[in-house]
Amino acid sequence: MYYVNPYIKDLYRVKYHDDREGVLRLDMNESPVGLPEEVVAGVKEKITPDYISTYPQKDELVRILAEHNRISPENISVTGGSDEAMRLIFQCFAKPEGEVLTVSPTFEMYDVYSKMFGMKHVEVSYNEEFEVSPEEILAAINSETSLVILLNPNSPIGTAYSEKEVREIIELSAKNGAIVVVDEAYHYYMENTVMGMIGEYDNLLVLRTFSKLCAIAGLRIGYVSGNEQLIHYIENAESTFNVNNVAILFAKEIMQTPGLLDRLYDTWKEGHEYALYALKRLGYRVQSGYGNYILFWPNKDSKKLIAELKEKDVWVRDYGRGVLKGWVRVSTGDRQSMERFVQALQLVDHD
Amino acid sequence: MYYVNPYIKDLYRVKYHDDREGVLRLDMNESPVGLPEEVVAGVKEKITPDYISTYPQKDELVRILAEHNRISPENISVTGGSDEAMRLIFQCFAKPEGEVLTVSPTFEMYDVYSKMFGMKHVEVSYNEEFEVSPEEILAAINSETSLVILLNPNSPIGTAYSEKEVREIIELSAKNGAIVVVDEAYHYYMENTVMGMIGEYDNLLVLRTFSKLCAIAGLRIGYVSGNEQLIHYIENAESTFNVNNVAILFAKEIMQTPGLLDRLYDTWKEGHEYALYALKRLGYRVQSGYGNYILFWPNKDSKKLIAELKEKDVWVRDYGRGVLKGWVRVSTGDRQSMERFVQALQLVDHD
Repeated sequence: MYYVNPYIKDLYRVKYHDDREGVLRLDMNESPVGLPEEVVAGVKEKITPDYISTYPQKDELVRILAEHNRISPENISVTGGSDEAMRLIFQCFAKPEGEVLTVSPTFEMYDVYSKMFGMKHVEVSYNEEFEVSPEEILAAINSETSLVILLNPNSPIGTAYSEKEVREIIELSAKNGAIVVVDEAYHYYMENTVMGMIGEYDNLLVLRTFSKLCAIAGLRIGYVSGNEQLIHYIENAESTFNVNNVAILFAKEIMQTPGLLDRLYDTWKEGHEYALYALKRLGYRVQSGYGNYILFWPNKDSKKLIAELKEKDVWVRDYGRGVLKGWVRVSTGDRQSMERFVQALQLVDHD
Repeated sequence: MYYVNPYIKDLYRVKYHDDREGVLRLDMNESPVGLPEEVVAGVKEKITPDYISTYPQKDELVRILAEHNRISPENISVTGGSDEAMRLIFQCFAKPEGEVLTVSPTFEMYDVYSKMFGMKHVEVSYNEEFEVSPEEILAAINSETSLVILLNPNSPIGTAYSEKEVREIIELSAKNGAIVVVDEAYHYYMENTVMGMIGEYDNLLVLRTFSKLCAIAGLRIGYVSGNEQLIHYIENAESTFNVNNVAILFAKEIMQTPGLLDRLYDTWKEGHEYALYALKRLGYRVQSGYGNYILFWPNKDSKKLIAELKEKDVWVRDYGRGVLKGWVRVSTGDRQSMERFVQALQLVDHD
């Protein structure tokens, strides 16, 4: 019989087979409305038979992103979503049987990749007040630690690490031979970023995605930034053409359209504040920090609520374990989408 | 210091930084003209802000491809080009320090992945008459063999394995615990396929791509077919959303537009035959079999010829080692592109 990688053989994976066309998608922190029509129309003019028949070229986008972040092109690699960057980081830097440190709850794929690459996943848990202790994170770093992954702000609870906390974690990790990955998927929903620190530390990687505020989750594009040497190793592990060229077109347009990021932010912010206000006014217990999502405690069982909202074509999600058990997460976006959500919620969430 | 995977640390990679916009691309076996305008226009109508903001859904495309190949959806996984499928196959099935068997020359990424995953790459070479011996391939299979990779037809020489040869290789591989990967990247340029055998063997994987005849290399989409169990393992190793949804739209359109594959083939065939005839008439020694490429022996040094053709915005490639040293490969496509190539060649390829 043929060999199968033992870490992959029995790996449990969640697969998404739902058709979400036409529904109000508030279950995966995508943008519910997407980019302005005219931006999409402008990019589509560049999608020609010749263009899509040509293998992709990332260099110009890399230059644009480097300039945007005030770093060098050598400090950036563009990847198929930040998800591919995470996979490549594990492939390059996960010490066999070493430890991966994250908080819990956080993005589920960190656990999947920990298992896929044969690592031990060490989790520092939030308490019932939705707080996580930076001291506990520091205390969990030791010579077995290979990767420390901080989603900042951390979905779905929405807390953020301060610059001082991140620096302490990076410095203690460096002493222990560990790399720190700061996943800034939700960066645009808060002001802080650690991008400016990549020149200071040789064990820091920062992830960004175009799937959230930038509203092109379907196109699969993101990037990883870090020390030139770290990026070199990641590029060694990449497939030759890892990102499609329509994603590259859109990413360039998003970065180069004056004011677009602000406009996307303002649209989101208006809807987010409306939803937060409406949920509170309706008497819900809510948890909201940084990020395009709000947690609320439903009046009925979360599974039941989700099923009933689905009948109204409104999709949200809940959690099966830990401090979030029973809570519902709704992704936030433009005001119109949020009004539709609140109306549907009022219709179904009573005894 | 942090850990770096030793196989990745010093891996030599070829990176493409050239801007090929506006040139006649005959160096990477893409389609030089791409899809018919109206096909692209039709798909573009479906590229909406909402669509590209939504995480991709592959199931409908999987069903279409299953029907096209008369297999089950459980026998298919759609990947980011066949390149991602190859990477996943190595990740799942490459026995640590085992052997990867290919012929030489063949697609360069098999060697890159062999090294990246710490395998020993065993190569059976073509002779000076551009023949490779199936007996030698069989003789190289042993208990250390983990993967046997056959590009069929094999670029750039264009020879193909017979059904009997493939069966013998699969059966001997099975006895030795090895998986056989038949890469059908150039399938559409010949009639044979081993897709029909996947129900017979539990150690056979077949790769297909949309980058060649289907003319969407820029969008990064392909698929791998095989026994349900093999596909299950591959899907365990995939990222959650590994293929972008614009590629999915185009792939569906290509498979569902009546007569399109034939039309693409006929367009290519006319140009290919013209180029082959013209090269022979001009006195070139040529090697051409199955596939959208022709090898020819230039009148001058291949590096010099390539540089001079580049000045005329016509890009072709050569080879640095083995039996192909000094030969030039030109990708073939529509007649107009081939006429432009032949004209440029006549202008530059003399003493």
